[in-house]
Amino acid sequence: MTGNIIQLDKNGNLKHFLSTEGLSQSLLQNILDHAESFASVGERHVKKVPLLRGKTIANLFFEPSTRTRTTFELAAKRLSADILNLNISTSATSKGETLGDTLRTLEAMHCDMFVVRHANSGAAHYIATQVSPHISVINAGDGRHAHPTQAMLDMFTIRRHKQDFTKLKVAIVGDILHSRVARSEIHALNTLGVLETRIIAPQTLIPKGVEELGVHVYHDMDAGLDGVDVVMMLRLQKERMQGALLPSEQEYFQRYGLTSERLAIAKPDAIVMHPGPINRGVEIDSSVADSDRSVILQQVSHGIAVRMAVMAMTMGRSPDDIGETE
Amino acid sequence: MTGNIIQLDKNGNLKHFLSTEGLSQSLLQNILDHAESFASVGERHVKKVPLLRGKTIANLFFEPSTRTRTTFELAAKRLSADILNLNISTSATSKGETLGDTLRTLEAMHCDMFVVRHANSGAAHYIATQVSPHISVINAGDGRHAHPTQAMLDMFTIRRHKQDFTKLKVAIVGDILHSRVARSEIHALNTLGVLETRIIAPQTLIPKGVEELGVHVYHDMDAGLDGVDVVMMLRLQKERMQGALLPSEQEYFQRYGLTSERLAIAKPDAIVMHPGPINRGVEIDSSVADSDRSVILQQVSHGIAVRMAVMAMTMGRSPDDIGETE
Amino acid sequence: MTGNIIQLDKNGNLKHFLSTEGLSQSLLQNILDHAESFASVGERHVKKVPLLRGKTIANLFFEPSTRTRTTFELAAKRLSADILNLNISTSATSKGETLGDTLRTLEAMHCDMFVVRHANSGAAHYIATQVSPHISVINAGDGRHAHPTQAMLDMFTIRRHKQDFTKLKVAIVGDILHSRVARSEIHALNTLGVLETRIIAPQTLIPKGVEELGVHVYHDMDAGLDGVDVVMMLRLQKERMQGALLPSEQEYFQRYGLTSERLAIAKPDAIVMHPGPINRGVEIDSSVADSDRSVILQQVSHGIAVRMAVMAMTMGRSPDDIGETE
Repeated sequence: MTGNIIQLDKNGNLKHFLSTEGLSQSLLQNILDHAESFASVGERHVKKVPLLRGKTIANLFFEPSTRTRTTFELAAKRLSADILNLNISTSATSKGETLGDTLRTLEAMHCDMFVVRHANSGAAHYIATQVSPHISVINAGDGRHAHPTQAMLDMFTIRRHKQDFTKLKVAIVGDILHSRVARSEIHALNTLGVLETRIIAPQTLIPKGVEELGVHVYHDMDAGLDGVDVVMMLRLQKERMQGALLPSEQEYFQRYGLTSERLAIAKPDAIVMHPGPINRGVEIDSSVADSDRSVILQQVSHGIAVRMAVMAMTMGRSPDDIGETE
Repeated sequence: MTGNIIQLDKNGNLKHFLSTEGLSQSLLQNILDHAESFASVGERHVKKVPLLRGKTIANLFFEPSTRTRTTFELAAKRLSADILNLNISTSATSKGETLGDTLRTLEAMHCDMFVVRHANSGAAHYIATQVSPHISVINAGDGRHAHPTQAMLDMFTIRRHKQDFTKLKVAIVGDILHSRVARSEIHALNTLGVLETRIIAPQTLIPKGVEELGVHVYHDMDAGLDGVDVVMMLRLQKERMQGALLPSEQEYFQRYGLTSERLAIAKPDAIVMHPGPINRGVEIDSSVADSDRSVILQQVSHGIAVRMAVMAMTMGRSPDDIGETE
Repeated sequence: MTGNIIQLDKNGNLKHFLSTEGLSQSLLQNILDHAESFASVGERHVKKVPLLRGKTIANLFFEPSTRTRTTFELAAKRLSADILNLNISTSATSKGETLGDTLRTLEAMHCDMFVVRHANSGAAHYIATQVSPHISVINAGDGRHAHPTQAMLDMFTIRRHKQDFTKLKVAIVGDILHSRVARSEIHALNTLGVLETRIIAPQTLIPKGVEELGVHVYHDMDAGLDGVDVVMMLRLQKERMQGALLPSEQEYFQRYGLTSERLAIAKPDAIVMHPGPINRGVEIDSSVADSDRSVILQQVSHGIAVRMAVMAMTMGRSPDDIGETE
């Protein structure tokens, strides 16, 4: 999918945010810069700016996710937008209405933005092709394809700790095959120019042809962690355990779980990331998750700032407008 | 039910909005005029007016309906009211509390308005007789009885396209028997003085004595559509198919589905309406639903404006107060 | 549990509100005084004050309760806070996340307050020990332990009707054994210095050692009601009926149901209270519930005011700040 064609308007500004793939380095840096301005809002006495007052944002969750929905809901409220939470699987489509009719109905209610979560890869892209010109679509996770706001909050967290992307070695560890997060992270890391991206996983959890994305594949955790600046752990979906793809939880932890001993193989100041919720003792040991090397909770905070940035940008607003709007 | 006695306060102003039956032509025109003022709010940069700021509106949905609830929620938010969504079937009444006690408890929380959806005909009227004087009740659909905000958004849509009601021939097509929408539409059309209202349906889907409402009954679609200005399609509840009331979906579509060919029998500038969600290929063909004769999505937009109008009016506020309040 | 140590900050101000136990008389009176200021807000034309604008409050309901959640939601909205409703049982913890990780994640989203409802006694206390210093925790009911906002709204209601606590005889009637409400009421009544607190219940519904709380135990309703100023009825959980603890509903009503005849044994101006929802004909007769001696609906109104007071106080705000903030 050629992300930039649909994601940008004719002036090159962000119109939809569907994927980190195909966006320029300057645009990604722009998102991070805007998020930097919003990061302070969450720490203010009054955690609200009136940037999207009077806008209506619909959380269209075709697949339930309380945590992700909550972060978008908070981002919208802190921008002073009105937010509708629509659990689509249990509403319109159960009445036999087509997806297109559901979208057009919400547009007719003067919604300005759809935040879309869907179990099918490509769903957010498809929806972006269907909506009217004034609507922006943000992908909150589609199948195995992309989860771009997660990737950008990860980039934001890395930049806060490591500044220069071009000197970094980054390892992504776990179920790459089923992970939309990993895919979006790899594209973002590439665009931001990291020195080296590694993926570490058993053969069964690595998608075919992944080397074409420029990553280095490791099956051995110790070899893969050697000398990296950033360790990005993935959540292990427990339902994968039931198939033939994976050994037992214990065996997985033994081979790919992140322990203090293993972390010592990375650089002394390497940071540890995880999109959450974490499975303690499955993909990550508590001694690592709770250590000062872990930036997992910072990722959560940054997630609100990054989502505020993307929501504001796709609506044509920037933090510089705050004074003007108030 | 003599709607006007309970729906109006002693000065003749709208207190509750329960039914289009029994309200005067000037009052219905007044609702449409107010809605006209609010229609522009949805298209503004900031889609909010502070008319009901500090008011608390409770969506009391004894029967679930995401779409209708959403339109009332949006209308309330755009009037700056606080809104509570209460799915009554799963809360208080499951604890054995009586309806009266639930209502009095919500009143004691200083709610100002109840938007009521209920599977039983007459439920909203009953509730309006039970509440304290300062509370307004809006009927969001009760059994087979009434759905007055739907009827008024239909009237609003007709007026925008056709201006003078007194010259219009209107056909309502489909399951009249089970339709609260049809019943509310017929009363509104009568009061607004349309030239002729026709209903088109198989004998099994026409209520007994419907001629007393002044409508002309047709069983043949072609005859019924001849020369009409407005075609109001009804949604076919698929569960009706299972009983003896209806033939198969295919046969229904053949006899009563609206196709381009059939629409050609109506006036050349006839508009097509539907309360949604539409069943494509059951009661309406896609070629009609998506044509420029269809005003279905305009109905959705108008629905927000009409609900804002009714909510404001029952609270004693008019669009003219906006300047004063801000 | 020594409530005061964890509930107060180092300056003796309310930080968390977990229990009425261990708080000083002056602090409880302070809550009632603040609630008095907020009580008028619910009756104003614009029922909102900007005291907690920009604050984020999370309703963490591990046990569902529409009514209690609604009162906290309304209190938060009338203080202009943003509120998140999280039904925890169906979200994060179902993904195997630990409670600690869920809490830290919500903190990282810059929540300011957790309103906690949990089936386990001590849950809110435990959470208060786990959160960061800037977070306040309010107990919205934990197991059989405490429901302090309910107790304080009861105290507020008593004070409005009876002024001087030190002259009052109060009877609490019903299932004391399982009631967090009764426990919180007894502590509050003791601290506020009532002359006498009685509990009236069958032996099977009285906790062991309850006399240590300074209450007088009655098994005979007539004897217990003799000369009291306040009758506080408890809701009978119907599921208790199925065990060996209780006779039939009819027999329970005969022995412990509050009828007009029984109420005549209390003082002529005695008031009747109930936390709701009431079971008419089980613990209370309709003739009493609907009489002018009943203050049950006033309790509901006062519940919003008391919750506003506690929310504001734990955030370091008082009604006196309203002018300054606006």
